[in-house]
Amino acid sequence: MTGQSEKARQYSREHVDRFQQELFELIRIPSVGGDPAHAGDVHRAADWLAEHLHALGLESARVMPTAGHPVVYAEWMGAGADKPTVLVYGHYDVVPAEMEDGWDTDPFEPVVKGGKIYARGATDDKGQLFIHLKALESYLKTSGSAPVNIKILLEGEEEISSPNLPPFIRENLELLQADVCVISDSSMRIIEEPAITHSLRGMCYFEIHVDGPREDLHSGFWGGATHNPALALVEIIGKLYNLDNSIAVPGFYDDVVELTTDERAMLAKVELTEEQFKAATGVPALWGDANYSIRERVSARPTLDVNGIWSGWTGPGPKTIIPAGASAKISSRLVGNQDPDKIFEQIKNYIEKITPPSVKVSVNLLSKGLPALIPFDLPEMQAASRAYERGWGYTPVFTRGGGSIPIVADIYNLLKIPVVMMGYGLDTDGLHSPNEHYSLAMFQRGIETAIVYLDELAQLPG
Amino acid sequence: MTGQSEKARQYSREHVDRFQQELFELIRIPSVGGDPAHAGDVHRAADWLAEHLHALGLESARVMPTAGHPVVYAEWMGAGADKPTVLVYGHYDVVPAEMEDGWDTDPFEPVVKGGKIYARGATDDKGQLFIHLKALESYLKTSGSAPVNIKILLEGEEEISSPNLPPFIRENLELLQADVCVISDSSMRIIEEPAITHSLRGMCYFEIHVDGPREDLHSGFWGGATHNPALALVEIIGKLYNLDNSIAVPGFYDDVVELTTDERAMLAKVELTEEQFKAATGVPALWGDANYSIRERVSARPTLDVNGIWSGWTGPGPKTIIPAGASAKISSRLVGNQDPDKIFEQIKNYIEKITPPSVKVSVNLLSKGLPALIPFDLPEMQAASRAYERGWGYTPVFTRGGGSIPIVADIYNLLKIPVVMMGYGLDTDGLHSPNEHYSLAMFQRGIETAIVYLDELAQLPG
Repeated sequence: MTGQSEKARQYSREHVDRFQQELFELIRIPSVGGDPAHAGDVHRAADWLAEHLHALGLESARVMPTAGHPVVYAEWMGAGADKPTVLVYGHYDVVPAEMEDGWDTDPFEPVVKGGKIYARGATDDKGQLFIHLKALESYLKTSGSAPVNIKILLEGEEEISSPNLPPFIRENLELLQADVCVISDSSMRIIEEPAITHSLRGMCYFEIHVDGPREDLHSGFWGGATHNPALALVEIIGKLYNLDNSIAVPGFYDDVVELTTDERAMLAKVELTEEQFKAATGVPALWGDANYSIRERVSARPTLDVNGIWSGWTGPGPKTIIPAGASAKISSRLVGNQDPDKIFEQIKNYIEKITPPSVKVSVNLLSKGLPALIPFDLPEMQAASRAYERGWGYTPVFTRGGGSIPIVADIYNLLKIPVVMMGYGLDTDGLHSPNEHYSLAMFQRGIETAIVYLDELAQLPG
Repeated sequence: MTGQSEKARQYSREHVDRFQQELFELIRIPSVGGDPAHAGDVHRAADWLAEHLHALGLESARVMPTAGHPVVYAEWMGAGADKPTVLVYGHYDVVPAEMEDGWDTDPFEPVVKGGKIYARGATDDKGQLFIHLKALESYLKTSGSAPVNIKILLEGEEEISSPNLPPFIRENLELLQADVCVISDSSMRIIEEPAITHSLRGMCYFEIHVDGPREDLHSGFWGGATHNPALALVEIIGKLYNLDNSIAVPGFYDDVVELTTDERAMLAKVELTEEQFKAATGVPALWGDANYSIRERVSARPTLDVNGIWSGWTGPGPKTIIPAGASAKISSRLVGNQDPDKIFEQIKNYIEKITPPSVKVSVNLLSKGLPALIPFDLPEMQAASRAYERGWGYTPVFTRGGGSIPIVADIYNLLKIPVVMMGYGLDTDGLHSPNEHYSLAMFQRGIETAIVYLDELAQLPG
């Protein structure tokens, strides 16, 4: 079957200019999912994709409603029941972009400069999802068939945390059933070091409210015998950590799958240096649990971060009050196999236990998401590695992503299939920032790698 | 000379209705010092007082300009050089009052209900300063003289922290020279327990700013190896306290004049119960340094209170950032003989020392004020005690005020004379609140006590 994939690769190279022009059409639709003013554009992008898939020969292509923005679905099942089925996930919504944010050119009018497409969505995720459509086209237009069955699922709410996708999946388990899911919505450090993300962190986001006196008190009349709620909150937050910067909540690490020696060795190859970290963030020195490397800390270990804190007088000048209350937003990034509900209960119980009787406390869950940890020795993962070697030209590393893409865990848990995150972007593409861009060379390599991946999947033992 | 004071007391009882009507005239002038719209009223109140003092026979009465609202000054020096001179301090400005704040009657149209005058300034401080004017009148109208020399200093900026009074005092040290200063601008718990405040706490108010990354970071990408500035601030604030709720800054207590056994016994007589404290403030339980009683903690011990704290995302819902920085406003109430500049240096040095290299910190002084601790065994203090016994009918307690009235420390330090705070109000008078009121019985007792105090001062050995 390698001849089939070689023909498809050849086709993709010959038609890359047209592919690019088609991608530009999609990019020009400002499908900002979080902005009600762009709701019509979001629907327009969904329609454009369904029509495009239809034109590729996928008669099943359709726009399917959800409680929010619609899902675009299409399938090509011509490989037959004895061949694997791949579910391709992508998202056609983008985050907002305005010239005044610092764009050099109109964010919704793509411009090519220095071999890169500058536009909102160029890399996240229109450019990357389009790779899979063009890989499929390359097969269908050369041999009339693809080596595996393909289901395509494109959502319009990823940038607003996919509130309606899990229910959609639950309602369409049969329709979406597949053997593996591939997602291209991530990035690599350098083009010579492609990355397959096999883990994402989950999330447990909560608020703490400490209440003390009935109302703000005069600190002169009552100070010294009143437990200042801001201090009480400070004490509570302080007790969430051990002196070695690990997390002090009892049981917090119980379900963490420890890194194996092999994986630590692999992560060491992509270690972030202290200098790189400082240059990227501007911090004067690094921090964290010294038992783990920097890369491990930001991707393979759970965290607890104060996202916001507020109490009392925050305007200019002095005001001598004891605040009536104090609040903080805190989020924990979770790793496999931590469960956000269990973690929240542990944190809540611990905070309630350590809160002294001189104040009252409440702890409320704001949002949560499961972590995803997909073994990289699965055949579908190793096939992806070979696909990069053949299609991209470099052996990929298996990495863990520090962020949270709850939909990965949802697909993994609801459809019970491996999710392979084959990113085709660069860490420096400026996603979510002004002047987001995407390398044309990576677009081309991505299509060829996606073509080869289907070929590799077809060759896996059934 | 007791006969002279008895005649004056008799006069004050006979004329109390007219005194009250005169006070009403002063109260009707809405001399809200902090409101530029009332600047004319503030000046009108100053003029009214100067004219009133002039009409009492004090030809020296005059309105003296400052960089802000004027000072009213008058003196009666007829007792002769061998008699002590008393400086009476009061303030004729008031805090704002609007019907919509919850007043039952017009705050600037005094109404008598249940033996109390309801009006802004009734107790703070027009009613209390007027006591001294009427005490002097009572002497002058009965025997043509007072037993001591009297200087009267009435300012119009007390409620905005007296920014222009210290310079005024420095420029008029000769004019204001006296043997003792008496201030009636405080209160007692119950009418049967008059209080002489012999100590006020000072102030060292500062801001801490912690800076971490260049800008807010994505907590998924950088969380685990970045020292969260809000956490760093929490850790710094936590280290300002010991486990027993005392303050951990090295040297902080070095200059604290420890309470004597006698004073502790005296303070024990006016101890606040836990129930009283909880009812007044709404706190669920008390807090503080268990080595000291509640009353001692809120008045005789230094404090450190978080007045405000802010960092990161404080709006609704989750936002998964590591904030770029975090800030807090913190103030320390000081007691004799702590020096605010020295304390600030100690705190700043300590914070800089405990701040880890993973963040940067800055500590800035916002405002400061000296504490005042005036020995209550001074003859002028003991004379005040006898004055309450004779004029008020109850033996007073010497108490410490937990708040800060910088002008007390300024007078004490600049004029180098004892300041005797003879409060004639009740803790429940509602000063600074809607429906501020002042008991007519206390107004009458106050005048008699003020009369007797001058008599007691005259009898002190020279």
